[in-house]
Amino acid sequence: MHLPPLASALPVVLLSHRGPVTFTRDDDGDRTAGRGAGGLVTALTGLAGHLDHAVWVCVGASGEDAAVAREAAGSLVHLALDPEPRVLAHGDVPEGRTLLLRLVEVPPEVHDPFYGVISNPLLWFVQHRLHDLARTPSLGREDHRAFEQGYVVANQLAADAVVEQVEKAGGRAVVLLHDYHFYLVADLVRQRCPDALISHFVHIPWPGPDAWHVLPPDLRQRLLTGLLGADVVAFHTRADARAFVLCAQELLGLPVDLASMTVQTAGRRVRVRAYPISIDVPALEAVAHSDASDEHLVDLDHQVGEGSLVLRVDRTDPSKNIVRGFQAFDLMLSEHPELHGRVVFLALLQPSRQDVPEYASYLTEIGASATAVNAHHGTGAWQPVDLRFAHDMGLATAAYRRCDVLVVNAVADGMNLVAKEAVVLSERDMVLALSEATGAHDELGRFAVTLHPFDVAQQADALYEALTMPAQLRRDRREHAAWVVHRNDARRWLSAQLEDLAELAVTGDEASDAGHGE
Amino acid sequence: MHLPPLASALPVVLLSHRGPVTFTRDDDGDRTAGRGAGGLVTALTGLAGHLDHAVWVCVGASGEDAAVAREAAGSLVHLALDPEPRVLAHGDVPEGRTLLLRLVEVPPEVHDPFYGVISNPLLWFVQHRLHDLARTPSLGREDHRAFEQGYVVANQLAADAVVEQVEKAGGRAVVLLHDYHFYLVADLVRQRCPDALISHFVHIPWPGPDAWHVLPPDLRQRLLTGLLGADVVAFHTRADARAFVLCAQELLGLPVDLASMTVQTAGRRVRVRAYPISIDVPALEAVAHSDASDEHLVDLDHQVGEGSLVLRVDRTDPSKNIVRGFQAFDLMLSEHPELHGRVVFLALLQPSRQDVPEYASYLTEIGASATAVNAHHGTGAWQPVDLRFAHDMGLATAAYRRCDVLVVNAVADGMNLVAKEAVVLSERDMVLALSEATGAHDELGRFAVTLHPFDVAQQADALYEALTMPAQLRRDRREHAAWVVHRNDARRWLSAQLEDLAELAVTGDEASDAGHGE
Repeated sequence: MHLPPLASALPVVLLSHRGPVTFTRDDDGDRTAGRGAGGLVTALTGLAGHLDHAVWVCVGASGEDAAVAREAAGSLVHLALDPEPRVLAHGDVPEGRTLLLRLVEVPPEVHDPFYGVISNPLLWFVQHRLHDLARTPSLGREDHRAFEQGYVVANQLAADAVVEQVEKAGGRAVVLLHDYHFYLVADLVRQRCPDALISHFVHIPWPGPDAWHVLPPDLRQRLLTGLLGADVVAFHTRADARAFVLCAQELLGLPVDLASMTVQTAGRRVRVRAYPISIDVPALEAVAHSDASDEHLVDLDHQVGEGSLVLRVDRTDPSKNIVRGFQAFDLMLSEHPELHGRVVFLALLQPSRQDVPEYASYLTEIGASATAVNAHHGTGAWQPVDLRFAHDMGLATAAYRRCDVLVVNAVADGMNLVAKEAVVLSERDMVLALSEATGAHDELGRFAVTLHPFDVAQQADALYEALTMPAQLRRDRREHAAWVVHRNDARRWLSAQLEDLAELAVTGDEASDAGHGE
Repeated sequence: MHLPPLASALPVVLLSHRGPVTFTRDDDGDRTAGRGAGGLVTALTGLAGHLDHAVWVCVGASGEDAAVAREAAGSLVHLALDPEPRVLAHGDVPEGRTLLLRLVEVPPEVHDPFYGVISNPLLWFVQHRLHDLARTPSLGREDHRAFEQGYVVANQLAADAVVEQVEKAGGRAVVLLHDYHFYLVADLVRQRCPDALISHFVHIPWPGPDAWHVLPPDLRQRLLTGLLGADVVAFHTRADARAFVLCAQELLGLPVDLASMTVQTAGRRVRVRAYPISIDVPALEAVAHSDASDEHLVDLDHQVGEGSLVLRVDRTDPSKNIVRGFQAFDLMLSEHPELHGRVVFLALLQPSRQDVPEYASYLTEIGASATAVNAHHGTGAWQPVDLRFAHDMGLATAAYRRCDVLVVNAVADGMNLVAKEAVVLSERDMVLALSEATGAHDELGRFAVTLHPFDVAQQADALYEALTMPAQLRRDRREHAAWVVHRNDARRWLSAQLEDLAELAVTGDEASDAGHGE
């Protein structure tokens, strides 16, 4: 796949927590580079290879990443992305896409509280509204210290690296900041690079002012003020963007305009926009056309036979609502004995953040609820739930191709790319059963059976509806949904942002408020 | 106390779940009447006695109430309120205030799901944001049935009784509906009594749209639509009123005006207003000047001696945040050994809703956390936490008079009348330590030490600040706070509502939007 460069008249500096590669030592003690994980990284990697001279600033996730960061000592690492990522030596002329990487060294005593106390779980829980407010959070001295000595310091280190890259580019660059790890960076960069065009993209849900009251007043104000250092604050959905504007109004007392979606602050007008992220369709199709995927498909066909396959693919995050999904399946089987032996619920789960107690206990609950379904309904020939822990794109793509229903019942989800992947790869006109609380529901809800995440009875009805939907309706909906995903792919997601920023660069604060976002 | 009648040119029909009396059988099998419990009932009882010819419609809370309702068969019960409530026989001419009562018979098979499944805990938990959303609620068939066959039917029965009273008054009456038990009534009454002036007062917090997404779409839309049957939807705070307007906009897609705080629906303009409820100061002072209160005060003086008394008075509701309060006290004692032996935290708690599992487990956690403080710091001569379970206004008023700090650290609270009671009765210029998440904080926050409910470290600091505040500052703040409570008492709360409704009656939909509310 060779695409023309993405349009950016200005040099681009990207910031995200994880980067496009992660380094490890192999058995011989040699350093090797592997692809970074996660939807955001996958989308950005696909795109960044098409951005001329973009520099990607990121924090090393592994110990070996930190070693690479230390050795690079602030200089850029030149990466070849194809066919597998590798560090280019000086003078090495690669085929295919390349990337310039700036690894930020964040010492463990900073990274641990930054990442393990504040970003995850505190901000993640606040924004997904996962706290049990009668009990959690219960913020103590150590949480305040983790903010000041972890989150603030890591944000300063990241901002220093971004500023250095912007200055090397002459002070005028497009700065694309990403996600909840770096809410303080935009303001820090603006102070030192007043000519930079700064966008901050928030990839997880942005709740209304109520949820932010869970944080101490000082913290919530600093996070919001930090974000408002950007020219554009971006989200996946208009609802999230609107909630952000309401937060600026209620929590900071700033004048806002809900019609033009702008916030007035310190003589500047900050635009708040929605650009729904998507997937790299050709890259996904390449995986799905692999031998590994084909082999898994043969196995799944053998397992399911003439029956129906219900699928979910998720990290074991409490926000994913895996337990209620099994409860709904259980209820549906109880009410529809005619389906016994004729449907399998395959859950492909990736264990996540098991060092966080809430995640460890949620994994236990997942196992218990899956076991309950099989104990209630299972027979020698048929176990209704097939629970597998793996992160295997060969298997996942085979399951997407084969499934009859994909279940996404998340309590809250910024976008949910699994829904988009399955819609594109389905070979059986699968029905998308999609939570109203996902960003993807904005684009795909019309073609889906909507799930209400807290209503197990409704989910059971919706699953039954999905499993018994007439073939023609399934086909029409699936084809429309796939068309929407193809049309608004990851490339369009980034180019819409770059076009809006380019327009802002030309017209300044008088720019039209229309933009290319949602 | 003889006050002039409250101004209402029209007959008044009140509706609340609990009424001014509750009936029981004594040991001899004779029916006796006692005062109804709860802040709302206390406030309304004090006021309703001054409303000429008002009829108070309520649902009997006890089995004996239901028997009275059945016997009355829709006719009114004439009550004398002073000195103790009693039913008046025909021709009986009492001294003092009287009330007309209409008891609604709600069969147990309706009342149980109406009250025990939907109102409490579902709506209470949604509005106080107490769900642990990864796990609860998990709505099943029985919850949907409880709504349709409990909440809806109870609302219809209440609406029938209200409509009958309005019709007996000639069709034009002021209808004052109260609280989260009856969100469907306003619309039902409007359909049958188009000339009635309807107000619905919500006494518990009204969260923004996010929280309402916890309810299935159909339910949340019906509840909101029901409320919008009123001419005025009223809350204790402007923040709650604003959140309601945003809900009408986001959840129902209705046009709203945040400047005039109105919602446009079906050709009508619904006003959304804030009237902060208060206490009946003379009635409270009467209790505080009783022998019972004086005797408790002697005991408390003996117990605390020269030391300081920190006080809280609460139901054992998870929204009251009792556990984090003890954790903060524990932290303060650890960091300030100079206070050891010199401060007692008296917690006067009333066990609440122990049939609801979340409440039963919260009571256990309260005991455990109190025990932890005493185990960490207690000595033979000094147990820092004094945990007492009682509902004893003699003791409570004595504690208000004696305490040095009153702690209200609620996670969420529509108003919190304990703060207002203590401010008025304090004889030692006590410091109010008040959660930012209470309605009372709007009026009294300026004179209080603000508590952040989720931040134990901040609460510990605030407690210490309260305990060490200079005498003059304590006095100034306490006197100002008491002045605010005296000025905006319960009588003013009701008269402001009646005046706004009277204006609406005269001017109709063209009425000015100013009103007498906040």
